[in-house]
Amino acid sequence: MAADHIDFWFTMGSTYSYLSVMRLVQLERLTGIRFRWRPFHLLAILQEMKHVPFADKPRKSAYMWRDIERRAAMYDIPASLPAPYPVQHSIVANLVASVGMRQGWGVAFVRAAYRRWLQLGQETGSEPNLSESLRDIGVEPRPVLALANAEEAKAALMAETAIARDLGIFGSPTFVVGRELFWGDDRLEDAISWCRYGSVRSLTLLDFPEPDSLGG
Amino acid sequence: MAADHIDFWFTMGSTYSYLSVMRLVQLERLTGIRFRWRPFHLLAILQEMKHVPFADKPRKSAYMWRDIERRAAMYDIPASLPAPYPVQHSIVANLVASVGMRQGWGVAFVRAAYRRWLQLGQETGSEPNLSESLRDIGVEPRPVLALANAEEAKAALMAETAIARDLGIFGSPTFVVGRELFWGDDRLEDAISWCRYGSVRSLTLLDFPEPDSLGG
Repeated sequence: MAADHIDFWFTMGSTYSYLSVMRLVQLERLTGIRFRWRPFHLLAILQEMKHVPFADKPRKSAYMWRDIERRAAMYDIPASLPAPYPVQHSIVANLVASVGMRQGWGVAFVRAAYRRWLQLGQETGSEPNLSESLRDIGVEPRPVLALANAEEAKAALMAETAIARDLGIFGSPTFVVGRELFWGDDRLEDAISWCRYGSVRSLTLLDFPEPDSLGG
Repeated sequence: MAADHIDFWFTMGSTYSYLSVMRLVQLERLTGIRFRWRPFHLLAILQEMKHVPFADKPRKSAYMWRDIERRAAMYDIPASLPAPYPVQHSIVANLVASVGMRQGWGVAFVRAAYRRWLQLGQETGSEPNLSESLRDIGVEPRPVLALANAEEAKAALMAETAIARDLGIFGSPTFVVGRELFWGDDRLEDAISWCRYGSVRSLTLLDFPEPDSLGG
């Protein structure tokens, strides 16, 4: 391996990140690569750039939903599109995800919140998505939402966001291998290739044989 | 086949289109799918949208070159990056490409002009790129440049651009199969899958066996 893990930088409220959120657990198992889930607040970075959100570009926005729909179908990921977008309070979802990563239930929360957003149409970062997603994974909402609203949680999220900014990140999802950035769910395989070989190649299942298929 | 051809909409001066321009001839042979090369003037569409070019977003621009470099290496396509960008006169290159498509040397010109731009650093749409690319393919520059500068050529390019706009195109390259849009060189395989199966699937070489490997 050229690197021993991949950092998965993501922001709640990013539509394309759904595909990665749903694919990562299986890819981690298949490749043996460890992914570190790192929520950050992309909006803080975008506001410093000359960014125009998809929602202000109707033809690009229409394309985005269609593209996600086709690719979700390819990956057998359920999706009921379009979902509410842009979301109003991605900051709250990012704070809860960030608390969850420290407490050990972050990945489960992110997956639950994304399912509720892109399968059930419940806007992420708002109720009922927040509390229901926590209940889905057996976490009591009240104390978590209080923690997420505290200054300490905000400082932690902004510290991560500053790291993302320093790395040159400008979108979600971004996969980072060493100092190498891969932007978009459609670059996830490139990141895996870089982690394994230190270059971007076309991967096949043969690059990741299961241990028992080697007789080991 | 779900469709009998793919329209390849592209604009000279688009960096990512280089990868498609260099890959298409081989993919056409491999898949048996016919690609129709359709130059259009993307800038005319972008100016109607709230578009901010890559060049105004330094971190996105830096990422773009690195991403193209890694992917060009994956496809064994030579590239000397970054190349001059944004280009000043993409309209001229689009007009010449458009004349060339009608006269039968368009594909060869586009490939030559892209090679000179992204391998030799000669800005596309300007001299010496224009004349040298034409000479590379055995076409006398003077009469072609006169033709490209005539009102008729401009009207033809703008008519194509109007069709692109009506299809919902907002970027280059865009592959169109029926009414289905696929934006980006990284969606070329999706377009091929749609053309063949009417859905987006992960393709392998097994989807396109060579005739003689079937004993035929």
